[in-house]
Amino acid sequence: MKKFSAAIDVMPLKEILDPQGKAVTGSMKNLDLSEISNVRIGRHITLEIEAENKEIATEKVETACKKLLANVIMESYIFDIKEL
Amino acid sequence: MKKFSAAIDVMPLKEILDPQGKAVTGSMKNLDLSEISNVRIGRHITLEIEAENKEIATEKVETACKKLLANVIMESYIFDIKEL
Repeated sequence: MKKFSAAIDVMPLKEILDPQGKAVTGSMKNLDLSEISNVRIGRHITLEIEAENKEIATEKVETACKKLLANVIMESYIFDIKEL
Repeated sequence: MKKFSAAIDVMPLKEILDPQGKAVTGSMKNLDLSEISNVRIGRHITLEIEAENKEIATEKVETACKKLLANVIMESYIFDIKEL
């Protein structure tokens, strides 16, 4: 069995309002950072997987994203897997 | 003025317990994904910056991270800036 690490980014879909990001964009002005706009906030998830090869590890992460880590109705995800 | 996009990952420090990640690690077992361990959950933030050059944009993002986006006592951050 090999060990892999995965880094997953889960973001709200572009079509969907991101109230947290909107609030942070507004706060930038109070910090003299009005050059910053369009803040969007999602989740960054790291994890480790034991699997025989990279294909199986990728499948497992795909399943984890769909079933638990992302709400695919409102969020999109991308991930990257590396062997440890 | 040029436009840049930044992608920021804010993660709980390794020394600090991540109860959300722990809970998700536990849930993996219920989904027949017990090969997955050591889940850690942070934030992924994207934003846009107007600046004269990449150095100034980097400075602005650094300030935004320190003052607003990350709690440096409990979290670490890394970011990547690209010209749009």
